[in-house]
Amino acid sequence: MLRYLTAGESHGPALTVIVDGLPAGVPVDLDRVDRLLARRQAGHGRGGRMRIEHDRATVLGGMRRDRTTGGPVAISVANLDAPNWADLDARPPVTTPRPGHADLAGALKYDHQDLRDVIERASARETAARVAAGALAEALLSAFGVRVGAYVTAIGGVRLETAPVDEAEAWSAAEAGEVGCPDPATGRAMIEAIEEAARRGDTLGGTFRVTALGLPPGLGSHVQADRRLDGRLAAALMSIPAIKGVEIGDGFALADRPGSAVHDEIEPDLRRSSNHAGGLEGGMTNGEPLIVSAAMKPIPTLSRPLRSVDLSTMEPAPALKERGDACAVPAASVVGRAAVAFELARAWLEKFGGDSLAQTTGAYEAYLREIAARGYGARGSGKEDGRR
Amino acid sequence: MLRYLTAGESHGPALTVIVDGLPAGVPVDLDRVDRLLARRQAGHGRGGRMRIEHDRATVLGGMRRDRTTGGPVAISVANLDAPNWADLDARPPVTTPRPGHADLAGALKYDHQDLRDVIERASARETAARVAAGALAEALLSAFGVRVGAYVTAIGGVRLETAPVDEAEAWSAAEAGEVGCPDPATGRAMIEAIEEAARRGDTLGGTFRVTALGLPPGLGSHVQADRRLDGRLAAALMSIPAIKGVEIGDGFALADRPGSAVHDEIEPDLRRSSNHAGGLEGGMTNGEPLIVSAAMKPIPTLSRPLRSVDLSTMEPAPALKERGDACAVPAASVVGRAAVAFELARAWLEKFGGDSLAQTTGAYEAYLREIAARGYGARGSGKEDGRR
Amino acid sequence: MLRYLTAGESHGPALTVIVDGLPAGVPVDLDRVDRLLARRQAGHGRGGRMRIEHDRATVLGGMRRDRTTGGPVAISVANLDAPNWADLDARPPVTTPRPGHADLAGALKYDHQDLRDVIERASARETAARVAAGALAEALLSAFGVRVGAYVTAIGGVRLETAPVDEAEAWSAAEAGEVGCPDPATGRAMIEAIEEAARRGDTLGGTFRVTALGLPPGLGSHVQADRRLDGRLAAALMSIPAIKGVEIGDGFALADRPGSAVHDEIEPDLRRSSNHAGGLEGGMTNGEPLIVSAAMKPIPTLSRPLRSVDLSTMEPAPALKERGDACAVPAASVVGRAAVAFELARAWLEKFGGDSLAQTTGAYEAYLREIAARGYGARGSGKEDGRR
Amino acid sequence: MLRYLTAGESHGPALTVIVDGLPAGVPVDLDRVDRLLARRQAGHGRGGRMRIEHDRATVLGGMRRDRTTGGPVAISVANLDAPNWADLDARPPVTTPRPGHADLAGALKYDHQDLRDVIERASARETAARVAAGALAEALLSAFGVRVGAYVTAIGGVRLETAPVDEAEAWSAAEAGEVGCPDPATGRAMIEAIEEAARRGDTLGGTFRVTALGLPPGLGSHVQADRRLDGRLAAALMSIPAIKGVEIGDGFALADRPGSAVHDEIEPDLRRSSNHAGGLEGGMTNGEPLIVSAAMKPIPTLSRPLRSVDLSTMEPAPALKERGDACAVPAASVVGRAAVAFELARAWLEKFGGDSLAQTTGAYEAYLREIAARGYGARGSGKEDGRR
Repeated sequence: MLRYLTAGESHGPALTVIVDGLPAGVPVDLDRVDRLLARRQAGHGRGGRMRIEHDRATVLGGMRRDRTTGGPVAISVANLDAPNWADLDARPPVTTPRPGHADLAGALKYDHQDLRDVIERASARETAARVAAGALAEALLSAFGVRVGAYVTAIGGVRLETAPVDEAEAWSAAEAGEVGCPDPATGRAMIEAIEEAARRGDTLGGTFRVTALGLPPGLGSHVQADRRLDGRLAAALMSIPAIKGVEIGDGFALADRPGSAVHDEIEPDLRRSSNHAGGLEGGMTNGEPLIVSAAMKPIPTLSRPLRSVDLSTMEPAPALKERGDACAVPAASVVGRAAVAFELARAWLEKFGGDSLAQTTGAYEAYLREIAARGYGARGSGKEDGRR
Repeated sequence: MLRYLTAGESHGPALTVIVDGLPAGVPVDLDRVDRLLARRQAGHGRGGRMRIEHDRATVLGGMRRDRTTGGPVAISVANLDAPNWADLDARPPVTTPRPGHADLAGALKYDHQDLRDVIERASARETAARVAAGALAEALLSAFGVRVGAYVTAIGGVRLETAPVDEAEAWSAAEAGEVGCPDPATGRAMIEAIEEAARRGDTLGGTFRVTALGLPPGLGSHVQADRRLDGRLAAALMSIPAIKGVEIGDGFALADRPGSAVHDEIEPDLRRSSNHAGGLEGGMTNGEPLIVSAAMKPIPTLSRPLRSVDLSTMEPAPALKERGDACAVPAASVVGRAAVAFELARAWLEKFGGDSLAQTTGAYEAYLREIAARGYGARGSGKEDGRR
Repeated sequence: MLRYLTAGESHGPALTVIVDGLPAGVPVDLDRVDRLLARRQAGHGRGGRMRIEHDRATVLGGMRRDRTTGGPVAISVANLDAPNWADLDARPPVTTPRPGHADLAGALKYDHQDLRDVIERASARETAARVAAGALAEALLSAFGVRVGAYVTAIGGVRLETAPVDEAEAWSAAEAGEVGCPDPATGRAMIEAIEEAARRGDTLGGTFRVTALGLPPGLGSHVQADRRLDGRLAAALMSIPAIKGVEIGDGFALADRPGSAVHDEIEPDLRRSSNHAGGLEGGMTNGEPLIVSAAMKPIPTLSRPLRSVDLSTMEPAPALKERGDACAVPAASVVGRAAVAFELARAWLEKFGGDSLAQTTGAYEAYLREIAARGYGARGSGKEDGRR
Repeated sequence: MLRYLTAGESHGPALTVIVDGLPAGVPVDLDRVDRLLARRQAGHGRGGRMRIEHDRATVLGGMRRDRTTGGPVAISVANLDAPNWADLDARPPVTTPRPGHADLAGALKYDHQDLRDVIERASARETAARVAAGALAEALLSAFGVRVGAYVTAIGGVRLETAPVDEAEAWSAAEAGEVGCPDPATGRAMIEAIEEAARRGDTLGGTFRVTALGLPPGLGSHVQADRRLDGRLAAALMSIPAIKGVEIGDGFALADRPGSAVHDEIEPDLRRSSNHAGGLEGGMTNGEPLIVSAAMKPIPTLSRPLRSVDLSTMEPAPALKERGDACAVPAASVVGRAAVAFELARAWLEKFGGDSLAQTTGAYEAYLREIAARGYGARGSGKEDGRR
């Protein structure tokens, strides 16, 4: 069972993640992990801290000669900003919670007087550790030809109007842009929207899409609620800070259309010519590209602070203004990609088992042969290349 | 740790659910459980089976004198339709998978030749067992004054345009209507849409909303991804068959609006005057009404069957036409309510512990006093009555 | 992930178990399940109830045509004694806890006034449900040639002095006897001890051994504490009512002997000529017969009741004398066998994955080839036949 | 839910542990953690490495001002020996597995050619991380007056013949001695046995006992197998490397004695005058001192190596002689104490809930009042001080 735990605070010495359950022999390119960490930090609209941190993954266990050993992998991501916060305990406590953050609920739940004790852990900085975990999951998946990627589909109401024809090309185009949007013109409009919001001291949210290519049918299961892959993916995405909506395939749009228009009919090769379902039917992958989307609310820390209450005096007070990204949707898309990759890797190992990459590969290839014998496939038909 | 497992097939003797982890002494009104089971079966647009089944919960363990004992509660819901399927094994195998269902992916995954072996378990009938589990969870929650309810917000593009002012009133109005919509005029338009679709041999999806009132702040946690309540609720809802989208609070709409407009400012009593966040911040309840919505795709079993392939011949063939609800959104709203109630009860017991209702109550009331001493509340201000 | 939950009380309508996670296509011989249920009920020294109950497994889901479907399997075992207890709620409450039972701790924990609410669930009758779960696990294991069995090694100090040479023969001999001991003479002495204790109104405990043959090396794992198979087996056995000790291989005797005498040296075929480790090294199977033992305390319900306190009056009072087995060690050995089988099946599926028996078999056989290529084996050398 | 994961190898940069689920506000004395780490390293019979390592816990997250924050606590224990192993990858592979270790089973399972990839993680050094986790658990428990301790009861057949009268005194006496035995004379005999074994190039195992004082009745549960505390404790202990047997209370000795002699009768204050059950009945604490024992096999790495096979040539060869403790039972007793403390803390939080120490304390004290009102207690009677 693949699982992970993270620890660490925003201005503590480091973030730490332990990933338990990877098979042995998975090649892990640490530069690739670092590139994902860097991409989480990039994106137009990020504030000052992103100029301080240059996240790098330090492996503390579970790998040797750039391969997993089968033991738990521990990765540390140092907080380069930490020295600037060495006086944290000497600073006055934070007592005015920010609306939209964990501050108030966390302070009540854990009985903290200094909101700093909530803020430090609730910070989106923690997601760097999840990106590291997701990068390990991608290392496993890529050994099977599965590719996972993400791109931004809307920021502040500026939308990518046309779905990309080729997912992999969209990923590349998204990486090339400043806000993770595959269409340059839309990306520029998004940047304008961010800059305009920033001028007003405001922030913007948006939506992003994560896609996975090369998945076989049959990951997840219909037999028990908590084994359905749709539910697990929804949990993984909705657990990312500031995410307030998740869709699979056409998502909410499916609710408006008649059944005759939205189901993906089955072709003679058991593939589909449409993919409204986003590659998931009955809580399982159906072999088509996996498509999930998420909505991120705008960051609640505004230059013009929101109305709040100073808990030490119970007087109305403006919320703490902690640092200032104007838009973190590009970063969230990287975290979303990691979250999806991790759940896919988990479902992969549940289905195929194996304690070494070769063993898992053996089981996977046998399954491919089995379903090919039943007529699934015509692999190489170009469908698995991400084209819709 | 509250948990459940369900078992049983659509035409087997019964559905069974075991719920483990309820404290002792929770009063359970079985008539209430049966009413929820009945409501799952009702709703305009349901097909013939709903005239056969009249679900009733039979308790097989874990209760005495209408109270929980602290032991696992087992509930059986008999399939009254089962005798009509006694010849199931003699029937010819189902070999043409239905697009939009688990049929094909399930047959490949589990290597079934007779799709019946997938269909029987993937059937939405299994959700009757989840409704029973949710009813037990509601029995716990209601002992603390927490109320959970649901209503339909759209069917086939016909939308409830105005959010109800009072959630509890909306639940009652929804129950009174035929399609679970609190607004009679909208409900009638929905019925028309369903009937028109039915005439065309088509089906409709829709959206529904689940709300919970009376929750304290601090259920769930920001400290670890899999302990966030937003993620768990998303999983619970997305795991319901045919659900393809989940939103919390204003959900996707939040992605379009600036930060200055969407955060719920904190009032002197630490409550909020708006609730865009749907009662969840930082993965925790914030004390405001919990609001989650879900999108259901139209039922894929059409009178005019979809294009598929007969797996026994690999020839194109129309998909099996199994029974025919035209719209199951009202039923799904009942299942969604159960799913949300179960997660809330789980989070409740994690926070408050306790092996008897009195013990849990003691911890809960102490917490209420603690946060009231910090200024939370002005309870009785009418905010917890569901008015937004 | 293979898992189970049980529910039901001693005198309720039935015991229920749901087993989730079995692959599809596993043949299950229900007569075999019933024989194990019957064996749990047999054994010299059992009291009156065993003449009433004749446990039979009724499948409520997850099977078709005597094979698993991949869905959760639900089994019900009716309590034939239940009608005799229809007046349970009219009976006066039990208020005097029995030392050695869950009565007192359970009543305090769950705040029960009528100890019946503890007794009914804490009763060893619940283990019938575990035996059913174990029987399903054995059905899986036997498809791979893995056999699990048990025998009694001591009762009331009367010991099986010589370990059997052949485990499978010992199982057969144990079944033939009245107290589950493979040596007839020792068995007779055990019966005498039980009868003598019964005459005194006393009870006897004892020890039993569970062995599994045909396991490959590498089930379980050394990499994380909760994935070690030794720990999981210990939990499974110690969780059986009245079990107070668990040993793996030579167990406690290993603590007294020097390292030079107790390790199982590695032969050229990578097998061992001794098996002090009981087939487990580093938390993993090493390919030798798995040997675990457990100690059962004597049943605390004596004819001459123990000293206790009436909780309704707080006056000293003799403990309730509920029914009267003089010795339940033979029954416990059957439950222990089921518990071990279940954990082995769980470890099996974790290592080999697979959603159909054929898929799991493919992965298993590939692994056998892999380790054979590394020199493991000389299978057929007779070592796997249970001879030590 | 309290849980932990560890990562790290014996000669990697550090061991890491993440403990998730501690409430906020628990005071943690890091010197105390370090003292437990030091004690794990001490004990007559330890080899050379113990002169190199001086373990210290470095907190990487989850604490502030020496108190937990409610976030996951990450602790790193640096491997001071690591620089001496910087050339690890340049060293020739280890190809001859050591009997009694994870080497062979691990190499087959994970398909490792260099046994080093197994040895590094299977090393008992990993238990330093468990000791750190246990120390955090003890910090929680001690806030409630619960004390946990351990002592060695046998080494190489030299036994502590008389059980201590006072557990807490025994812990102190054990700490004062060189081998963790509370009786000085027995301790000296143990040392002699170790030295004699060492002279022969041999090793010794032994037994130890872990006790916990001040526990209330009702931790754990009888209602579901995997919630029984006896099973969980057995798993925690049996998962420690080299442990082959676990007993609760009088353990195996209970199997030999009649029921009339072994049950702990209930006194008017609902306490007991004997404690054969080791404080656990029905899978729950009964309020008496918790007593568990474990048997450790002798360390398999002998100066006179055992017979094995070189996997690279398949020729018989002597097993690798890695470093040389002659006896690690004192160290294992420290690990056992940590393992027990962790499970107790987990059961504590399940029963009492709470997100801050004060909240948990409130629920605990309310429970004490509740059971006192039912007559439990006469606390202060001296029973909870560890005297038996």
